[in-house]
Amino acid sequence: MDLNEMIRIMARDAKQSGRLLRVAKRLEKDTALEGMAENILSRKEEIIKINTKDITLAREKGLNPAMIDRLTLDEKTINSMVAGLREVAALPDPVGEVTGMWKRPNGLQVGRVRIPLGVIGFIYESRPNVTVDAAALCLKSGNAVLLKGGSEAINSNLTLNEILTEALKKANLPEKSIQVIPSTEHEAVGILLGMDDYVDVIIPRGGEGLIRFVAENSRIPVLKHFKGVCHVYVDEFADLDMARKICFNAKVQRPGVCNAMETMLVHNKIAPSFLPGMVEEFKKAGVEIRACEDSLRLVSGLKLADDSDWPAEFLDLILAVKIVKDMDEALDHIDRYGSNHTEAIVTNDYERSKEFLEKVDASVVLVNASTRFNDGFELGLGAEIGISTSKLHAYGPMSLKELTTTKFTVFGSGQVRT
Amino acid sequence: MDLNEMIRIMARDAKQSGRLLRVAKRLEKDTALEGMAENILSRKEEIIKINTKDITLAREKGLNPAMIDRLTLDEKTINSMVAGLREVAALPDPVGEVTGMWKRPNGLQVGRVRIPLGVIGFIYESRPNVTVDAAALCLKSGNAVLLKGGSEAINSNLTLNEILTEALKKANLPEKSIQVIPSTEHEAVGILLGMDDYVDVIIPRGGEGLIRFVAENSRIPVLKHFKGVCHVYVDEFADLDMARKICFNAKVQRPGVCNAMETMLVHNKIAPSFLPGMVEEFKKAGVEIRACEDSLRLVSGLKLADDSDWPAEFLDLILAVKIVKDMDEALDHIDRYGSNHTEAIVTNDYERSKEFLEKVDASVVLVNASTRFNDGFELGLGAEIGISTSKLHAYGPMSLKELTTTKFTVFGSGQVRT
Repeated sequence: MDLNEMIRIMARDAKQSGRLLRVAKRLEKDTALEGMAENILSRKEEIIKINTKDITLAREKGLNPAMIDRLTLDEKTINSMVAGLREVAALPDPVGEVTGMWKRPNGLQVGRVRIPLGVIGFIYESRPNVTVDAAALCLKSGNAVLLKGGSEAINSNLTLNEILTEALKKANLPEKSIQVIPSTEHEAVGILLGMDDYVDVIIPRGGEGLIRFVAENSRIPVLKHFKGVCHVYVDEFADLDMARKICFNAKVQRPGVCNAMETMLVHNKIAPSFLPGMVEEFKKAGVEIRACEDSLRLVSGLKLADDSDWPAEFLDLILAVKIVKDMDEALDHIDRYGSNHTEAIVTNDYERSKEFLEKVDASVVLVNASTRFNDGFELGLGAEIGISTSKLHAYGPMSLKELTTTKFTVFGSGQVRT
Repeated sequence: MDLNEMIRIMARDAKQSGRLLRVAKRLEKDTALEGMAENILSRKEEIIKINTKDITLAREKGLNPAMIDRLTLDEKTINSMVAGLREVAALPDPVGEVTGMWKRPNGLQVGRVRIPLGVIGFIYESRPNVTVDAAALCLKSGNAVLLKGGSEAINSNLTLNEILTEALKKANLPEKSIQVIPSTEHEAVGILLGMDDYVDVIIPRGGEGLIRFVAENSRIPVLKHFKGVCHVYVDEFADLDMARKICFNAKVQRPGVCNAMETMLVHNKIAPSFLPGMVEEFKKAGVEIRACEDSLRLVSGLKLADDSDWPAEFLDLILAVKIVKDMDEALDHIDRYGSNHTEAIVTNDYERSKEFLEKVDASVVLVNASTRFNDGFELGLGAEIGISTSKLHAYGPMSLKELTTTKFTVFGSGQVRT
């Protein structure tokens, strides 16, 4: 059978499974999730053995250590997958929630009730633990999922799929609710993106290249973010100690992720008292600073930023720094260079905080907190399948609710329209 | 200037206006809406005169009477536009609504607040009154809008645009918040669909051909429904008098619209007592029946349905009729031929009503009420900009809330991530 035909059958089976899943009871779904956790624990050694096979092949292909690291399933990653499954089981079922109900003058009772989307296509890179995390969220929200992981993780992913399916069967849920596409061909991604008869939404997770490819080639709606060019604006009324802690955390705690700060904007009134000490701290942590001319006049030995630094997502220990003459300039800079991902202000001024929250167009806007909190778990959604920076359907971290929609239910007693 | 460049500038201006609109106060928006209503009333004669020009040109081109009718702005249509503007002004502002707020263990206060989408591209056919209806909903929800109407309505649309803009100016809102694309070229639609740097969502309204063209050619997410193949299932436990009224209303009250019934499914136990009388009523109203073989055995003189009738959206006084052996057969038929638009059951059985509401995948599912109620106004949303039958972002009638999204706002006191 050719790849196209194989993926079509998988997608059709997913849609059929989705029809059964959409009326599955919470108890059945949670039983399956618990069963998955148990299966993974009891087959831990087998998983590690298969994963070693992937790692060996990856090493032979010359993958870099960071990629090998992401590919690796060890005791710790496996335990965290198991904990993740149990956390998702403990979350409330989003399906069936009535988000509103009201009566019409003619007596019709109208409600909106949360339902699954149907079939999710999830496309990701090397981490095999993501297979389990994504499958858990899709199942809990009543969706079937087609998983296309990185080719280097194929053996790990297929084994995990088999383990998850076993638990689905035991819980009397459709086996084809979770399907890893058993292909290492890049072509499989393109084929999946054309299955608009069966797949309701595509969620890609990975580098900007993968996400652009998916966005440009999909016939199916895509929930995505390209990149996070996140700013912290240190206002003239900031508590400077607090600002220092927040900026340091936003840049240094985990520089390689999308919610790390890439540009720090500093109000010129507090720049002299704030910037030298802050730069000192950053330098100690190995952060390279690329700064505006005004900053260079305040702190010696800084590198001058060029035009390519303001829109850059460094994902590294590099920080662009700009002194602004007022908050409007900061807002304009964020409007121009921000990526609608995460933006923060540090201020003790009530009006400024209010204005920043209202005017900044980003999926998460923070006052006096680190940009690193843009994360489904940190914001209290329980878990996260991704972040969306486009506004349709979801804006910000996506969890169970974002994998659902609502339909209208109408309770009548014979009403007709006149 | 070429068409492409002109539309690019309009889109860019729309985006710029959207930035100002997103923080506009309700009072400003309502003042503009009231001003629009007054302007339309005071310039009524001018509108009718310009519209007559469009009608004359359309007659010369040989447009059919139904299209001329849709194109016509008379005293009645104008009054209804004015009433529509005032109704939208009276609706609550969706922007700024906090849809949830909670505290995290670390003291962060996290909320979700409703914000506009940004720029809406609205593509529609001949009715010029839709220009005003759509502009009003977009403005109230804080969105800028680019309007591409039918070429035959161009003069009416441009005059209406000018009248609306005048009211925007008076209310100190950006003039370019509402822009009719001044082109009768079909090419303009394609160009608008490529403006993904500026336009956040496309909403097409018109025939299936227009909507397919838009869906297939857009680089921007599209909110749409292709067609409404709506069913009423008359259960064995239905009140047959009620069923007769509902089915008659669903088919006959306005057969040319998407929420009219196209297929009636009848449980075989009540078919002998229900179908003959029902068919009689339909025949009196001029409805052509295309029925399954079982129906032909019960009622003489019916035409046998063929395979093309079950998925058909007749939009006419034609009805497909099928007798089913049980509710499962009805559910299977709806799953197979329904268009996720509107589905109704008539029953007095509690379990059946519950099962139908839960199992049927449609944007609006009704018990004991006519399918004709799938409409934003009828369901209590205040107004409607369209109906979505795909699940992403909106499912069902779309009103002000569906023209918004939510962002996360986070109130901290110096929190950093560990």
